[in-house]
Amino acid sequence: MKAFMDRDFLLQSSTAQRLYHEAAAGCPIIDYHCHLSAQEIYEDRRFENITQVWLGGDHYKWRLMRSFGVDERRITGDSSDREKFQAWAETLALAIGNPLYHWSHLELRNYFGFEGTLNGETAEAVWQLCNVKLARPEFSARSLIQRSNVEVICTTDDPADSLEWHEKLARVCHSEQSEESHAESGTDSSAQAPQNDNAEGFSVKVRPSFRPDKAICLEKADYAAYLETLGAAAGCKIDSFASLCKALAQRADFFDRLGCRVSDHGLAAVPYAEADADTVEAIFQKRLAGEALSVLELAQFKTALLVFLGRIYAEKGWVMQLHFGVIRDNSKRVFRALGPDAGIDSIGDAASIQDLACFLNALDETDQLPRTILYSLNPNDNAALGTVMGCFQQGGIPGKLQLGSAWWFNDHRPGMEAQLTALASLGHLATFVGMLTDSRSFLSYARHEYFRRILCNLLGTWVENGEYPADMAALTTIVRGICHDNAARYFAF
Amino acid sequence: MKAFMDRDFLLQSSTAQRLYHEAAAGCPIIDYHCHLSAQEIYEDRRFENITQVWLGGDHYKWRLMRSFGVDERRITGDSSDREKFQAWAETLALAIGNPLYHWSHLELRNYFGFEGTLNGETAEAVWQLCNVKLARPEFSARSLIQRSNVEVICTTDDPADSLEWHEKLARVCHSEQSEESHAESGTDSSAQAPQNDNAEGFSVKVRPSFRPDKAICLEKADYAAYLETLGAAAGCKIDSFASLCKALAQRADFFDRLGCRVSDHGLAAVPYAEADADTVEAIFQKRLAGEALSVLELAQFKTALLVFLGRIYAEKGWVMQLHFGVIRDNSKRVFRALGPDAGIDSIGDAASIQDLACFLNALDETDQLPRTILYSLNPNDNAALGTVMGCFQQGGIPGKLQLGSAWWFNDHRPGMEAQLTALASLGHLATFVGMLTDSRSFLSYARHEYFRRILCNLLGTWVENGEYPADMAALTTIVRGICHDNAARYFAF
Amino acid sequence: MKAFMDRDFLLQSSTAQRLYHEAAAGCPIIDYHCHLSAQEIYEDRRFENITQVWLGGDHYKWRLMRSFGVDERRITGDSSDREKFQAWAETLALAIGNPLYHWSHLELRNYFGFEGTLNGETAEAVWQLCNVKLARPEFSARSLIQRSNVEVICTTDDPADSLEWHEKLARVCHSEQSEESHAESGTDSSAQAPQNDNAEGFSVKVRPSFRPDKAICLEKADYAAYLETLGAAAGCKIDSFASLCKALAQRADFFDRLGCRVSDHGLAAVPYAEADADTVEAIFQKRLAGEALSVLELAQFKTALLVFLGRIYAEKGWVMQLHFGVIRDNSKRVFRALGPDAGIDSIGDAASIQDLACFLNALDETDQLPRTILYSLNPNDNAALGTVMGCFQQGGIPGKLQLGSAWWFNDHRPGMEAQLTALASLGHLATFVGMLTDSRSFLSYARHEYFRRILCNLLGTWVENGEYPADMAALTTIVRGICHDNAARYFAF
Repeated sequence: MKAFMDRDFLLQSSTAQRLYHEAAAGCPIIDYHCHLSAQEIYEDRRFENITQVWLGGDHYKWRLMRSFGVDERRITGDSSDREKFQAWAETLALAIGNPLYHWSHLELRNYFGFEGTLNGETAEAVWQLCNVKLARPEFSARSLIQRSNVEVICTTDDPADSLEWHEKLARVCHSEQSEESHAESGTDSSAQAPQNDNAEGFSVKVRPSFRPDKAICLEKADYAAYLETLGAAAGCKIDSFASLCKALAQRADFFDRLGCRVSDHGLAAVPYAEADADTVEAIFQKRLAGEALSVLELAQFKTALLVFLGRIYAEKGWVMQLHFGVIRDNSKRVFRALGPDAGIDSIGDAASIQDLACFLNALDETDQLPRTILYSLNPNDNAALGTVMGCFQQGGIPGKLQLGSAWWFNDHRPGMEAQLTALASLGHLATFVGMLTDSRSFLSYARHEYFRRILCNLLGTWVENGEYPADMAALTTIVRGICHDNAARYFAF
Repeated sequence: MKAFMDRDFLLQSSTAQRLYHEAAAGCPIIDYHCHLSAQEIYEDRRFENITQVWLGGDHYKWRLMRSFGVDERRITGDSSDREKFQAWAETLALAIGNPLYHWSHLELRNYFGFEGTLNGETAEAVWQLCNVKLARPEFSARSLIQRSNVEVICTTDDPADSLEWHEKLARVCHSEQSEESHAESGTDSSAQAPQNDNAEGFSVKVRPSFRPDKAICLEKADYAAYLETLGAAAGCKIDSFASLCKALAQRADFFDRLGCRVSDHGLAAVPYAEADADTVEAIFQKRLAGEALSVLELAQFKTALLVFLGRIYAEKGWVMQLHFGVIRDNSKRVFRALGPDAGIDSIGDAASIQDLACFLNALDETDQLPRTILYSLNPNDNAALGTVMGCFQQGGIPGKLQLGSAWWFNDHRPGMEAQLTALASLGHLATFVGMLTDSRSFLSYARHEYFRRILCNLLGTWVENGEYPADMAALTTIVRGICHDNAARYFAF
Repeated sequence: MKAFMDRDFLLQSSTAQRLYHEAAAGCPIIDYHCHLSAQEIYEDRRFENITQVWLGGDHYKWRLMRSFGVDERRITGDSSDREKFQAWAETLALAIGNPLYHWSHLELRNYFGFEGTLNGETAEAVWQLCNVKLARPEFSARSLIQRSNVEVICTTDDPADSLEWHEKLARVCHSEQSEESHAESGTDSSAQAPQNDNAEGFSVKVRPSFRPDKAICLEKADYAAYLETLGAAAGCKIDSFASLCKALAQRADFFDRLGCRVSDHGLAAVPYAEADADTVEAIFQKRLAGEALSVLELAQFKTALLVFLGRIYAEKGWVMQLHFGVIRDNSKRVFRALGPDAGIDSIGDAASIQDLACFLNALDETDQLPRTILYSLNPNDNAALGTVMGCFQQGGIPGKLQLGSAWWFNDHRPGMEAQLTALASLGHLATFVGMLTDSRSFLSYARHEYFRRILCNLLGTWVENGEYPADMAALTTIVRGICHDNAARYFAF
């Protein structure tokens, strides 16, 4: 029996162990997709206790606690932080097979040096240990990032966002890295000398990502209000589809100047419905007039806007991330109490592979398909996506289309193994850009270790079974590529 | 090489073996979902030969025989029981990888003490052995149940059913267990002393389940006739949606008095289509008038009735079971010859996760969602269901929503492992209420052993791989919970 | 660690090794589904270099090269064959987990005796080695087929095809096998003595398959032109649905006389929409008049024609193959440049299990369902298909309905294991007709070895785990059945 979560956790063969320790473990992290706060990074946030870090906004943990029968008071309610931690410890103790069991213990080991297991009895000791350590400087937001060996962070930002904190961070980082060339940081910001900031000694690139979901979700009640916000940010009035496109293009330029290399879209499904420009404009006007839109009209509008944006991304050399297969805010009762991201989202089954293929073709047909990462929350889509990608791969860019890393509800050993196996079988695994963090927490970099162990174990198993030669040079190229080098080349930060 | 089906069948590690033999094997069975006949239990049915037990109504076996090329005469036709057994033995002998191979041999070992393998050559010896034993008292229906260590049995019953045999059994069991408190058996039945019955020494609770499929399936040709039957049982005339609801509520009260704690619904898909009361009433009247209904109207009616029933279940503290993802009676040729449950049903792919989520929300929104078990016959739904559940979990009831045990066509090692892995990854496995039997046969309790071995092997593998600590106390809590304790608490018989 | 691809490649237990080497390896191949050219077989084609054999028309390899970032010039463009081979070698070297890694190395070992690994450094040596060997007589098309121990080949042919090369081959084979009875080769062809042909010493049966996709795809722009071609072949004018049916029936008779035993259909999804004869005729006339057809009308027409054809197949004792779950020609840019079969097809998700079940029932209801093989390109369909089949199995024909071998994008270890496991769990694996080649290359028979190793490993694992007895006689029957004997009986060539 292997000891619980020891040095060779998840590494079931000597080849797997060699690959992880010699090739994977030392690679820096390119965190090309997360939900960290640029402000918290800039201000170098500190935390008072482990409940703040772990349970403040982590809907993964909230769900598990509710499933275990914990009452809402001790999850998001007015219980004390200590009580909440106790409830969490009791929930986790029996959560066999759940990735939170592994993530939490990896975080306790890697950041707090706690080698035991968390449960109702050990909760008090862990609480004390963590809180003492959190008070130390090496537990500030930036210290955690740097201790995690992170090279780049891409936050998730609305096109209307001022990117104030990114600008501040960019100025700091620019001065830190003055020996390097940073053409993309633009003339305006580089003209200003960094002053009075707290970013000394912080050399991680923090970049915005362009996520225009609010501009696309025409059906939302607050769409008109959002157009006001976006128009204000872009300095123009949005009263037509054309002016919406112009505003988004203007904001994309602004994001690009701050080093943005990535867009992101959260969709129930990638739509495809053709419509000419007049039809799209009429739909937009109908929406502005407050009229109801049909399912077809919504699809036509979204298709047109996504195609427009895709072309911008291609022109700028950005990567387009498409996240779909999600149903959000299922429990209206909880949504009314807690708002979005409250642990009430689920996997959906409404994605259409045909629509996705037609959408990709609409961009590919004129050679304006950007590098694209496809993420479905529904693991059933792995195989179909793995083959749709192959239809649009193109010389010159290894893995131009990517099967996104096992994401959100798939972010566990079986989910990652399924994604990696599908990609290897149907595409070229060695071109994969690897793991995304997708977290709001500064401790979640442990998920990269989790991914890397699973990756090395899978490859090691294949080698041990005689399915690939024990060629350590080739294997090291593959492992380092997936852990770091491919992303560095693909995103070109 | 492990010996075929020995003491450690399916238990591939020492941890798995310890968990099974020390924690799982001794747990009583709570058979919360089966299709046994209360009359046969009351009358303590005997069987003349093994063909009666095994092939009389077992469409699993019929399908396998047809697949193997056996002609219908030796399956459901006029061949002798001995000939049918021979055909079955020859079919089974080569059925590698099929769960029937394991179920059948477990039954031969556990009930008949036969340690060999069944095939064309051994068929005669097995036939003789089984038939001799079946003549003994310990092979009566009740003896088999008690030898299987069963605590509770929930049969499957139509709301119009008189529950005559349940009443008789309840009287017997009440007297048997007179030292226990049985408030739920009601005043009427407890007032009568058991007399002239054959239930002496039988202490297993036999409870009805409320399965109102016929009241919901508006599209069936015999719907009007069913309303007559239901109205007669409820003592009222059903001529409106309101009176249908009233009749069902009245029958639910009656079932509740006989200790019913569980409802069950068999659906192609869980529907969701909103409609106001007038619309639903108009649809019902249209149906009574013999007019055709649209797909939307059917969905609106079914949604309204299911929401009404769900609220009743919540009020009574019953569990709602939703079974879906099935297409029934695919071969009309066979259906005309043999009727329903003839081995001509299949997995369907029409279930909509969005509709399911909206249906659950309709009950949850007013805090009237009962404890609910979701079963899809389509294993592709595992992941989505595992996440939809999490959106409606609620403090106070561990595992209020359950991902139902691998059911029917999924009731084999890979299917159970997939269900358990999905549940562990996406929810809290330790709250799982475990295996259902779903059988018409008194020998099918061997399926619980099958499930428990697979469960212990999976958990044992995780422990051996260092993915969960070798904490036998915690593991025993988890295993006993899933095998017995969770169901005891969840159903509260 | 097992050595890379040694004698026991993929065989992870001694039982697996015994099953493969003693039972599977020696079985002849019944290639009941491929895309080889009867003309190339008759003319005994030779190849100048390995690029011609491997990269001439192999869209699997093209896709992998594009995924790896190889520019189109070195894939399908005007680069030299040597340059293309270099690009392929570099692509393959890092393609860990991809079936092409295994197929390619199996082909290098089995046909060229190369025991190393192909990569950028070894490419020159492999190029030289292969090209020298390709010049030898034992590398002609027929020699490769015979060295592969092939008994029967079924090519894929349009009903309008003259089958000129099949007739020539049939004459040769007839004389070769004059001691056998060949009633199905017909009077006309057997009357002619073979003369001046190159087929001496070639005893493999080469049969046509009937694939009327062009007659069914009413929506294609060139449909009218195809009707002309088909009418010319059948010697009649096609101006009505009735005359279309008559022409196809006439061609089926012709194919039957040349030994055809198999039909094949490539569909996005198996349709089902009932319509009376007048409606179908009206749809056909509408199409001839150049009018647009609705989705429903297309489904009605296709249903009617498929039912008509299915009855013909049943009457002739042919096998009906239904291939679905595909989206073809996704990238219009590549399609315009390279045409169909250019590596731009994908798995689709549009198949409806309900429609499939209704279609099968339409034939079964009148007892006119032919032996049928169901292939979905979408592996998610495995479970549902495995159960739909069971509804239509019928005495007298073991495995009358078959879950088709893991096909195209599923043709790798995990895909094959998934198909075999689904079939074993849901049906009767021992009746399976086994692997199809589905290739355009004379070297692709290595895929049968790949399949057989995976099959034996899976069965061996079950035996080693004690899930099936170590009964070598039964296991040999099962393995030889799946590798050869079942297909021989099922297709009855």
